[in-house]
Amino acid sequence: MKIFIINGPNMQLLGKREPEVYGSESLEDVQINIAKFAESLNLETEFFQSNHEGDIVDKIGNAGDDIAGIIINPAAYTHTSVAIHDALKGIAKPAIEVHLSNIHNREGFRHNSLTAPACVGQICGFGTQGYKLAVEAMAKIICK
Amino acid sequence: MKIFIINGPNMQLLGKREPEVYGSESLEDVQINIAKFAESLNLETEFFQSNHEGDIVDKIGNAGDDIAGIIINPAAYTHTSVAIHDALKGIAKPAIEVHLSNIHNREGFRHNSLTAPACVGQICGFGTQGYKLAVEAMAKIICK
Amino acid sequence: MKIFIINGPNMQLLGKREPEVYGSESLEDVQINIAKFAESLNLETEFFQSNHEGDIVDKIGNAGDDIAGIIINPAAYTHTSVAIHDALKGIAKPAIEVHLSNIHNREGFRHNSLTAPACVGQICGFGTQGYKLAVEAMAKIICK
Amino acid sequence: MKIFIINGPNMQLLGKREPEVYGSESLEDVQINIAKFAESLNLETEFFQSNHEGDIVDKIGNAGDDIAGIIINPAAYTHTSVAIHDALKGIAKPAIEVHLSNIHNREGFRHNSLTAPACVGQICGFGTQGYKLAVEAMAKIICK
Amino acid sequence: MKIFIINGPNMQLLGKREPEVYGSESLEDVQINIAKFAESLNLETEFFQSNHEGDIVDKIGNAGDDIAGIIINPAAYTHTSVAIHDALKGIAKPAIEVHLSNIHNREGFRHNSLTAPACVGQICGFGTQGYKLAVEAMAKIICK
Amino acid sequence: MKIFIINGPNMQLLGKREPEVYGSESLEDVQINIAKFAESLNLETEFFQSNHEGDIVDKIGNAGDDIAGIIINPAAYTHTSVAIHDALKGIAKPAIEVHLSNIHNREGFRHNSLTAPACVGQICGFGTQGYKLAVEAMAKIICK
Amino acid sequence: MKIFIINGPNMQLLGKREPEVYGSESLEDVQINIAKFAESLNLETEFFQSNHEGDIVDKIGNAGDDIAGIIINPAAYTHTSVAIHDALKGIAKPAIEVHLSNIHNREGFRHNSLTAPACVGQICGFGTQGYKLAVEAMAKIICK
Amino acid sequence: MKIFIINGPNMQLLGKREPEVYGSESLEDVQINIAKFAESLNLETEFFQSNHEGDIVDKIGNAGDDIAGIIINPAAYTHTSVAIHDALKGIAKPAIEVHLSNIHNREGFRHNSLTAPACVGQICGFGTQGYKLAVEAMAKIICK
Amino acid sequence: MKIFIINGPNMQLLGKREPEVYGSESLEDVQINIAKFAESLNLETEFFQSNHEGDIVDKIGNAGDDIAGIIINPAAYTHTSVAIHDALKGIAKPAIEVHLSNIHNREGFRHNSLTAPACVGQICGFGTQGYKLAVEAMAKIICK
Amino acid sequence: MKIFIINGPNMQLLGKREPEVYGSESLEDVQINIAKFAESLNLETEFFQSNHEGDIVDKIGNAGDDIAGIIINPAAYTHTSVAIHDALKGIAKPAIEVHLSNIHNREGFRHNSLTAPACVGQICGFGTQGYKLAVEAMAKIICK
Amino acid sequence: MKIFIINGPNMQLLGKREPEVYGSESLEDVQINIAKFAESLNLETEFFQSNHEGDIVDKIGNAGDDIAGIIINPAAYTHTSVAIHDALKGIAKPAIEVHLSNIHNREGFRHNSLTAPACVGQICGFGTQGYKLAVEAMAKIICK
Amino acid sequence: MKIFIINGPNMQLLGKREPEVYGSESLEDVQINIAKFAESLNLETEFFQSNHEGDIVDKIGNAGDDIAGIIINPAAYTHTSVAIHDALKGIAKPAIEVHLSNIHNREGFRHNSLTAPACVGQICGFGTQGYKLAVEAMAKIICK
Repeated sequence: MKIFIINGPNMQLLGKREPEVYGSESLEDVQINIAKFAESLNLETEFFQSNHEGDIVDKIGNAGDDIAGIIINPAAYTHTSVAIHDALKGIAKPAIEVHLSNIHNREGFRHNSLTAPACVGQICGFGTQGYKLAVEAMAKIICK
Repeated sequence: MKIFIINGPNMQLLGKREPEVYGSESLEDVQINIAKFAESLNLETEFFQSNHEGDIVDKIGNAGDDIAGIIINPAAYTHTSVAIHDALKGIAKPAIEVHLSNIHNREGFRHNSLTAPACVGQICGFGTQGYKLAVEAMAKIICK
Repeated sequence: MKIFIINGPNMQLLGKREPEVYGSESLEDVQINIAKFAESLNLETEFFQSNHEGDIVDKIGNAGDDIAGIIINPAAYTHTSVAIHDALKGIAKPAIEVHLSNIHNREGFRHNSLTAPACVGQICGFGTQGYKLAVEAMAKIICK
Repeated sequence: MKIFIINGPNMQLLGKREPEVYGSESLEDVQINIAKFAESLNLETEFFQSNHEGDIVDKIGNAGDDIAGIIINPAAYTHTSVAIHDALKGIAKPAIEVHLSNIHNREGFRHNSLTAPACVGQICGFGTQGYKLAVEAMAKIICK
Repeated sequence: MKIFIINGPNMQLLGKREPEVYGSESLEDVQINIAKFAESLNLETEFFQSNHEGDIVDKIGNAGDDIAGIIINPAAYTHTSVAIHDALKGIAKPAIEVHLSNIHNREGFRHNSLTAPACVGQICGFGTQGYKLAVEAMAKIICK
Repeated sequence: MKIFIINGPNMQLLGKREPEVYGSESLEDVQINIAKFAESLNLETEFFQSNHEGDIVDKIGNAGDDIAGIIINPAAYTHTSVAIHDALKGIAKPAIEVHLSNIHNREGFRHNSLTAPACVGQICGFGTQGYKLAVEAMAKIICK
Repeated sequence: MKIFIINGPNMQLLGKREPEVYGSESLEDVQINIAKFAESLNLETEFFQSNHEGDIVDKIGNAGDDIAGIIINPAAYTHTSVAIHDALKGIAKPAIEVHLSNIHNREGFRHNSLTAPACVGQICGFGTQGYKLAVEAMAKIICK
Repeated sequence: MKIFIINGPNMQLLGKREPEVYGSESLEDVQINIAKFAESLNLETEFFQSNHEGDIVDKIGNAGDDIAGIIINPAAYTHTSVAIHDALKGIAKPAIEVHLSNIHNREGFRHNSLTAPACVGQICGFGTQGYKLAVEAMAKIICK
Repeated sequence: MKIFIINGPNMQLLGKREPEVYGSESLEDVQINIAKFAESLNLETEFFQSNHEGDIVDKIGNAGDDIAGIIINPAAYTHTSVAIHDALKGIAKPAIEVHLSNIHNREGFRHNSLTAPACVGQICGFGTQGYKLAVEAMAKIICK
Repeated sequence: MKIFIINGPNMQLLGKREPEVYGSESLEDVQINIAKFAESLNLETEFFQSNHEGDIVDKIGNAGDDIAGIIINPAAYTHTSVAIHDALKGIAKPAIEVHLSNIHNREGFRHNSLTAPACVGQICGFGTQGYKLAVEAMAKIICK
Repeated sequence: MKIFIINGPNMQLLGKREPEVYGSESLEDVQINIAKFAESLNLETEFFQSNHEGDIVDKIGNAGDDIAGIIINPAAYTHTSVAIHDALKGIAKPAIEVHLSNIHNREGFRHNSLTAPACVGQICGFGTQGYKLAVEAMAKIICK
Repeated sequence: MKIFIINGPNMQLLGKREPEVYGSESLEDVQINIAKFAESLNLETEFFQSNHEGDIVDKIGNAGDDIAGIIINPAAYTHTSVAIHDALKGIAKPAIEVHLSNIHNREGFRHNSLTAPACVGQICGFGTQGYKLAVEAMAKIICK
C-alpha cells in the first residue's frame, strides 16, 4: 500500500526561510517524520515537491495501480489550478487536501479552493501535523 | 484538561435517518467513541448538541478556566452565524471546526464558512473520523 | 394523518398589530379555521409558532411517523436559515412553504428563499388563505 | 365572471412528451378539468396558450371588462419578459402566477421571476393542481 | 415612560474578557450607569441581554403599551437577522441601534446592518457612552 | 424623405388606460400629431406598433431605400432585446430611442438599455413631446 | 432522415447588407449549398428562418418523428431566450448550435449562451462553413 | 422666465481642441446660439461653466425665484456626483440632463448617471443640438 | 479647546427649502444652538460649510494644534470622497461623522460611507440633535 | 502545409481511464486518425501534448514559417491561462479551439474561455470528431 | 520644454505630518529636488498642488503649447475622478501617473485607477523617487 | 551586488514579431542595454526568461544571499499566478514589477495584478525603458 504525498509551489523553502514563523524543520525533515508515521500504519510513502503545475499534473496522472491514495498540499495552485482538479478527478483514487495555515484567515483570494472539490476532504490550519492527520484519514479510507 | 465538543443543528438526527447514507451510528455512539479516544490522550470531554444558535453561543461563552479548547461542528450555522464567530473570537481558547462532509463539494452557499476564521483550523470530509482527527490536533495544540 | 403547521418569527403578532393592514384575525383564529378546513379533508393538524430558529429546527426534527407533512411559513427565517433548510431536507416528509405577502414585491433581500428548495412547492401572496391552499395541496400529495 | 388562463411557451407539449415525467394528461385535458372546477365556483374560463411573448402581451392587453382576473403560467418568459410584466401591470385586474415545478429547485436562472411582482401571488411546485389552487385563490380575490 | 435596552449575543462577556481592550466595566456596571442616567431624564429602563435571536424577537414583540422605545445593540445579529428587523418594524415604537465599535472600520461583513433600516437612527464607535447618547436621543424622540 | 416611427409592447394601451396618469390622448392621436409636425419639417411618417419583438425586427429589417431614419420606443424590449439591437445595427440608417418616462427614475431593471448603443441618441422623460423632439433631431441628422 | 436548419433574427439580411463584411451570398444561396452538402451525406434538409422567438419555439416543438436532429443559429436569441432552451430540451432530438462569428470576441453580452446547454455542441467563428461542419457532426451523431 | 444652462468639467475646451471631432464651434458660439433660440421661445438664459463640482452645486443652490428651470450637462460629474444629484433634488425646479455624445456607446463607467434620477428627463447623442431640444422641452414643462 | 464643525454640500439650504420636511431652522440657527451647547461643555466651536470637496479637504488639513477634534457631516461626499477620508486619516485628531437622516433607510448608494472608517464613530438619523450628541461624544473623547 | 495539433493537461489519459465514458481510443489512436484525415486534405500534422502551461506556450511560440495554423484543446488551461491567450495572439497564425465535451453543460467555472478570444473559432461537444471538424475548418481558412 | 508636475489632495501635508512614516521632506523640498533633476535633463518644471478636483481639471485644461507633458499624482482623486481622466484625454499631451505608495498593497478601493487609462504609464511604490523616475520617462517620451 | 531580472511568458518573442509595434530590439538586445546601465550603477545583473510559471517560482526561490533584489515582468502570469506572489513574499528581498504596456489601458482581465502586492512598486507603460527605471529604483532601495 503506497501513497503519494505531493507538495506544491514554494514548499521547498520550508524551514529555510523565516524559521521563526514556520519553524526550523525543513521539508525533508517533515517528510521523514511523515514516512515514519505512515510506516507505523503500514503505509509506504512517495514524496514529490514541485513548483510546476504541470509536474504535479504529470505526477498525479502517473499514479499506477500500486498507489492507494494521494495527499496533496497544492499551496498557491489550490486557488488557480483547474488542471490539478481535473487530474485528481481523472484518476480513481482518494485524495486529501492539506494546508499548513488556515486559509479562511488569509487574503480573500485564498478562501476558495479549486482543488478541494476533487478530494475526499480537506485539513487546514494545523501546520505540519496536518500531514499526519491526513495520513491517518487516508489509512481509514483505504481500509474501507 | 477538558475540551468541549459542540454539534450544531440537525446533528441529533445522526444515525436515526438515512442510515444508508450517514451510517447507523447515533450521535451518542459517536460521542462515546470520541470520549474514549480523547481519554487515551488524557483529555476529558464534554459534549453538547443544540439546534439553537443562541445555546451554542451561551455554551461557548460559558467555557471556564477548566476548558482547554473547543471542537465544533456548527453544521448549518457555519454559513450564517456571525454570533458563533464572535463567541469563539471572544474567548481565549483554541477552536477546531469539523464537518462530516466535504463542504467544497456541496451547494455554493456551503462553500463559505463564517466561523472558520475564528478557529485554528478546519477538518472536513472524513465523516465521524473527523472528530478524532480534531481531538488529536487539539491535544497537540494544548501541549504547546 | 396529521400535519404540522409551523409559523416563524413575529407571526404571533398577527391580528394584534396593524389590523387595518393584516386584518383583525389573530393567529389563533387563523389556526382554528385551518384546523376545521383540514378536518374536512380528513387531516389532523398540530400548530406551532416560534420566534426561535432552533425551536423550529427541533420541531421539524421531532416529526414522528404520525406526521404526514409540514406546512411552514418561515417568515424572516426564509431568507437566512440554512438550518431550517437542512431540517426539512433531513426528514423524509413533504413540506410546503407559505407566505402571506408576495415576497417578489418586497425588499430585495426577501426575493430569495433559502428554505423553498427543501420544499415541494411554495404559495405566496394570498394572505391567510394561503394556508388553506397549502392544506389542499398537501392532502393531494399525501394521497399519492 | 370570466377569467383568462394563459400558458406560455412549450406548454402545448404537455402530456405529449416525457409522459413518465409530466404525466400523460395533455394541456387540453388539464384545461377541461380546470374549466369544470372553475364552473363549480361559478367562474367562466377562457384558455390561451402561445409560444409567442407578443401574443401573450396582446391577449392580456385585450382583456375586456368581462374579464375578472388572469391566471398565468409564463413558463420560460417568467425569467425574461419585462413586456408581460408591463402588460399585467397595465391592466387593472388581479393576476396569479403558476408554475408546475418548484422553480427554486432548478437552474439558477429560473430562481428569479420578472413577472411575479406584477401579480397578486405565486403558486409553484404542485404540478397541474397548481391551476386549481390558483382558481380557488382567484375566486376569493374576486369576491372581495 | 419606560424603555427597553436590549443587548445581543456575547455582550454578557463585557468586562469579563479582554479588559485591556473593552475596559473592566461589566455589562451590569454599564446597565447601572445607563439606568441612573435615564432616570435623570425621567425614563425608566428595563434591561435584557440574550445570545438567542428568538429571545430578542420575543422581547421586542412583547413590548407593551408602557414601553415608549427600544435601544438595541444587536451585536452579531445586526448583520444576519431579518427576524429582528421584522420585529422592530412590526411594533409601532421608535428604536435606536447602538454599536460599541465603529462597524465601518471592521471586517466587510460588519459594514452592512440589516436591522438599522427598522430604526430611527444608529450610533456607533463610542464604546459604552453610545448607550447614553441613545438614551438622550430617545428622550427627545419620545417628547415629540 | 420618410421615417419609421415604431412603438413597442403595451403602447397600444396609451390613453385607454390610466388616463389620469398617461393623459387621455390615444396612440392614434399622438401619431396624428407627430405626423403633422413631421410634415412641417418635410418628413413623411410611417407608424408601426407591435407587442411582438419579431414584428419589430421584421419591420426594421424591411426598411427600404425610401426610409431615411427610425424613431423607436422599444418599451419593455429596451431592456431585453438583443434582436432589436442587431436589427438596428444591421441596417445603415440613423435611429433615435424615445421613452415617455425617465427610465433612470424607475426600477433598476429599466436603467440599462440594450438598444440605445445601436442608436444615434436617446430622449427620455418628456412624455409624448419626446417623439417631436426626436423628429426634430432626426430632421437635422438627415440633412447632414 | 431529415434535419431542421433554423436561423434566428436578422439572418434574412445575410448577403443583402454589408456584403463587404459578410460576403455577397444570400441566406438562400447558403441554404442551397447546405442542402447539397447534406444530400451528399444522405440527409434531407428543411430550412426555417424567423425573427420571432415564438415561431422558432413553435417550429422546434413541431419537429415530428421524421426529424432526426436540429441545427440552429439562434443569433440574438442565443443570449436572451430561455424559451428556445426549453423547446430544445423538451424534444428528444440532438441539436447543434452554430454562430457565424466567434462570440467570444464580441461584446460581453454575447459571451454567454442560454441555448447551448440544451445542445450536443456548439460551433462558432467559421462563417457559413460552420453549417457544413454542423451537418457533418449531425450525420455522425444520427448514425450512433 | 429665465433658465440656467450649466456645463460641467472640460466643456470649456469645446471647439478649441480636436475640432475635427467636436466641430470648430466654441462653447461661447454654442451659448450664443442657444440664447437666440431660447429668446425665440421667450426664455431668458444664464450660462455657467465650471470644472468644479462645488461651483455647480453652489450655482444650483443659488437658483432664485426668477429661475424657472435648469438645463445641465454635468459631463464627467454625471457619473460621480451625488452632490449635484442632491442639489437638483433640493430645489423645487425642473431640470433636464444633456449629453453631447451617446453615453450608452462609450466606456462602461459612463453608462450610469447619478444625476439623471434628479431630472425630468435626459437627452443624449445629438451634439450641441441637444441643448436646443432641451430648451424646447423646458419651454413646454414651464408652460404646464 | 476648539472643535471644527464641518458641513458638506447643500447643507446651506437647511431651513430654507422644504421646511415642512427639514424644519424651519436654518443652518445658522442650528450652529448657534450647537455653539451654546458646546460652550456649556467648555468647548469652543468653529463652523464651516462648503459645497466644495476641496475646501473641506483644505479646512481639515489646516486644523492646527488648537483644534481638538472634528465633527463632520460630509453629506453627499460621504459616499464619493476618498479625499476627505485621506484628509481625516492624515491629521492626528478624532473625528465624528453625523448624518441628519438614517442613511440605511435611503437609496442603496447612500448605505456605504467612504469617510466613516476615518472617524471614531458615526451618528445618524436624529436630525439636528445629532450634532449635539456628537459634541457630547467628542467632549468625552477629548477628556481621555 | 503543416499544422500543430496541441492537447493540454490530462489529455494523455484519454482511453486509458474511464473507457466506458470516453471510449477506449487512446490519444495516440486519435492522433493517427486525425493525421490520416488531414493528409487526405493535403495537410501535414505535428502533435503535441503537455500538462505544462509553459510547454504549450513554448510550442506555440516556436511555430515557424512552415506552420500554417494551430488546433488546440487547452483543456483545463482554457479557463485559467492568459499566457496561452497571449502566445496565440502573439503569432500571426490562425488557431481553432476544440473541446471534447460541451463546456456550456459543465461546472460554471468551465463556461468561460480565456483562450477562445485569441482563436478564429471554437468547436465543442462532439468528442474526438471535433478535431476532424477543426482540421476541415482549418483547411478552408488556410486556402483563403 | 516645460512640464507640469501636479499633486492632488492632501499632498500639501507631506513632511509636515507623520514624518516617521513619510519622511521629513516637505512637498516644497521634494519639488526643489525634482526641479533640479529635471533641469539636468533640460526640462523646465511648473509645480501645482491642489485639494480641489476642479482646480486640477482647470490646470490641465490650461496647459498651453509650451507644455510638453504632465506628471500627476492625483492622490485620492485617482480612484474617483472621471473629470481628471477626461481632462487628460482632452489635451494632446503625454501624462504619467505617480503614486508614492504601492496602491496594490492598500485598501481595495485604491486598487483601481480611473485616471491611469488616460496616461502613458504609471509608477507607484517608490516614494518621492517616483517623481524623478517619471521625469526621466517623460524626457524620453518627449524626445520621440 | 547582483539583481535578478526575470521575464515571463512570451517575452522571448520581443523584437522577433510585430516589430512595427514593439520595435526591432530583441530581448537579448534589451538585456544587454539593461546590463550596461546597471553596471553604471554598480549592479551586476542575471537575466532569466521563461514561459513556465514553475521555472519562475524556482528561480525566485533560488535567489541566494548574493542577490540584492528582483526586477520582474511576469507578463501574463501577473494576472493569474498566486505562486509567483508567494515566491516573492517568501524571500526577504525587494522586488519591482515592470510592464511594457500600460495595463490599465488594456482588457479588463489585465487591470488587476496578483503579483504587485508582493512587490515594493510597479512601473508600467514605458516600453523597455521601464526596466532601466526599475534598475534605478532598485539601486536606491538597495542603498537604504
